[in-house]
Amino acid sequence: MKCRKCGAQAVLELRRHNAAFCAPDFEEFFRRQVVEAIRKHGMLTREEPVLVAVSGGKDSLALWDVLSSEGYNTAGLYLNLGIFDYSKDSRTKCEAFATGRGLKLIIADVEAEVGAPIPGVQRATRRPTCSACGLSKRYLMNKVALDHGFSVVATGHNLDDEAATLFGSTLRWQTDALSRQSPVLPATHPKLVRRVKPLYRLSELETAAFAFLRGIDYIVEECPFSRGATSLMHKEILNRLEAVSPGAKHNFVYGFLERGRPAFERMESVTLRECARCGQVTTSVLCAFCKLAGRVKRTLVTQSHTERPSFDRENEAN
Amino acid sequence: MKCRKCGAQAVLELRRHNAAFCAPDFEEFFRRQVVEAIRKHGMLTREEPVLVAVSGGKDSLALWDVLSSEGYNTAGLYLNLGIFDYSKDSRTKCEAFATGRGLKLIIADVEAEVGAPIPGVQRATRRPTCSACGLSKRYLMNKVALDHGFSVVATGHNLDDEAATLFGSTLRWQTDALSRQSPVLPATHPKLVRRVKPLYRLSELETAAFAFLRGIDYIVEECPFSRGATSLMHKEILNRLEAVSPGAKHNFVYGFLERGRPAFERMESVTLRECARCGQVTTSVLCAFCKLAGRVKRTLVTQSHTERPSFDRENEAN
Repeated sequence: MKCRKCGAQAVLELRRHNAAFCAPDFEEFFRRQVVEAIRKHGMLTREEPVLVAVSGGKDSLALWDVLSSEGYNTAGLYLNLGIFDYSKDSRTKCEAFATGRGLKLIIADVEAEVGAPIPGVQRATRRPTCSACGLSKRYLMNKVALDHGFSVVATGHNLDDEAATLFGSTLRWQTDALSRQSPVLPATHPKLVRRVKPLYRLSELETAAFAFLRGIDYIVEECPFSRGATSLMHKEILNRLEAVSPGAKHNFVYGFLERGRPAFERMESVTLRECARCGQVTTSVLCAFCKLAGRVKRTLVTQSHTERPSFDRENEAN
Repeated sequence: MKCRKCGAQAVLELRRHNAAFCAPDFEEFFRRQVVEAIRKHGMLTREEPVLVAVSGGKDSLALWDVLSSEGYNTAGLYLNLGIFDYSKDSRTKCEAFATGRGLKLIIADVEAEVGAPIPGVQRATRRPTCSACGLSKRYLMNKVALDHGFSVVATGHNLDDEAATLFGSTLRWQTDALSRQSPVLPATHPKLVRRVKPLYRLSELETAAFAFLRGIDYIVEECPFSRGATSLMHKEILNRLEAVSPGAKHNFVYGFLERGRPAFERMESVTLRECARCGQVTTSVLCAFCKLAGRVKRTLVTQSHTERPSFDRENEAN
C-alpha cells in the first residue's frame, strides 16, 4: 500500500477516501481536515482565545495539539467528574500534556458545582448517568468559558461521535435534538459561548492514529459508566454499515448537515431566558443544571439524617 | 404466558405492546390494527373497489385475507416477474388463494410490458435488480389499476418493510424519498391511483403468525435476487435494536410519520406531467419505466446481432 501523496510506504488506509497515507502525509491530511472544518463553518479565528475541553482521551488531546500547533490561542479545560481512578488518571494525562507544551490548563470540579461527584449525582437522582454527566459538562464548559472571558469552546467530538448521536436522535425523530446537532452551535444569547467541533470530519480511527503518530500520551480506558451505553451499540451498528459501505458514516452526517438539518431548523424555535438561580441560559425558570443540583442537594440532606453517603467506593460504578 | 384479553394460554408474545394473545384474540388484534390503519389514514371505503397487489408471500396474502373477510370489495393483482421457479411457485399460491375464496385475480406480465422478464432486465440494463423490479412493479400496479377502473392499490408492506426503507433513506438523507414515505400515497394526478399500506402497523412476525393461524398457504422462499440486498442488512440491524429496545421499529416509523415527514414534505414539491410515450405520470419527458423498457429493447436488438440472449437459465440468478 503506497501513500497517495508521495508514493512511500503507507501506514494507514482510509477506505472512505479511497486513499492511503504515509505518517507525515496523514498528519498533513488530518490538519487539513481540521482547518477545512474551521474555515467551512467559521468556527474560530486565530485572534480569538479558544477554550479546548479536554478529557484526557485521544480526541480532545489531538484537538488541542492541532489547534495549538496551528497557531490558535488556546487554553485547556479539564472538568473533574470525580469518577474514581478514571478521573484521576485522565487529569494526570491532561496536566502532563499541558505542562509538556507550556499550555494553560483550567481545572473545574463537578462536585464543587453540583454538590456531588458524578457517581453521587447518579445515586442522588434518577437520571441516567451519561445524561446527568453530559448536562453538567455542557453547563460547566459554558460557565468556565464566560468566567474566564472565552467566547468559544472547542470539543473533541469526532465523526463517529457525531454519527452515533445523530443515529440515536433519528431513531426517535427527536426534532429538538436534530435541529441543534451541528459542528457549530452559535452563541444565540450573550450568556452562551459558541461551541465548535473541529474534528467532526475525522473518524475515531483517524484521531487515534494522529494521537499515536504525534506521541500524545492519552488515557485509553473508557469511562466506567459508559459500559452498555446505547451510544456504544449505535457505534457498533455504524461500524458494521461502514465496513459494508465505506463512507456510510460520512454520508449520514454530511447528508444530514446538507439536507436533513435545514428541514428541522425551520420547525424548532425556542425563547431563551436567564435561570432564576444561576443566571445561565435556559428555556424555563430554573435551568436543567440547577434542577439537577437541587435534586442532589435535597437527597444529600435527606440521607444525612439516615446514613452517610459514600461517593468514592470504586466498585459501585455500573 | 396468558392472553391479555381472555387469560387463556397465549400463543404469541408482542414485546413492543407488552402483551401476549391467544390465537382468536391475536387475530382480533391483527384485524383491529388493519382497521385502525385504514381509518386513521382514510385509506379505503367499503364501497370502493381495491386492487390488492399479491406476491404469494405471507404479507400480501394476509392483507387480501383481512380486507376480503372484513367486507372490502377486493380483487388481486399478481405481477409475473419471470423470476424462474420463484415466480411460478408464487403465482400458483396466489391462484390457489383466489380460487379457494372465490376472489378475482388479475395477472399481468412484466415481460409483455418491459420487453424481458426481470432477470433479462437485470442483464440488459446496469440498474440494480431490486431497483428495476420495484420500478416495474409500481408502474404496472398503477397501469393495471387504471385499466381496470380501480382508484386504489393496497400493498402488503409491513412495519419491518417500512422501517427498513426509512432506515435506508435516512442513512443517506434522501429527502425526496423521505417526503414520499407514507402509509398512504394520495392520487396527486388523474392518472395516479392511490397507494395504501394497511399492514404498516404490523410486524413481519405478526403477519407470519396471522397467515399461519388463518391457514394461508404462502410461498416461504424469498426472491433469489434478494440475497445480500442492503434492505436485508438493514432489517437485521433493526431487529437487533428491537431486541434491545422493544418498540424501536415502531418508534422509528411512527416518530417519522409524526415529526420527521412533516419537515420534509415542505421541502419537496414536484410538477407532474404525462410521459410522452405511454401517457403515465412522470416528472420528466419520458417516465422511468419507458426509459427502462427502451434500454431493454435497445440491448435486445444489439444482442440479436451477436448472440441469442437466454433469460431463463435458473442458475444465473444472483
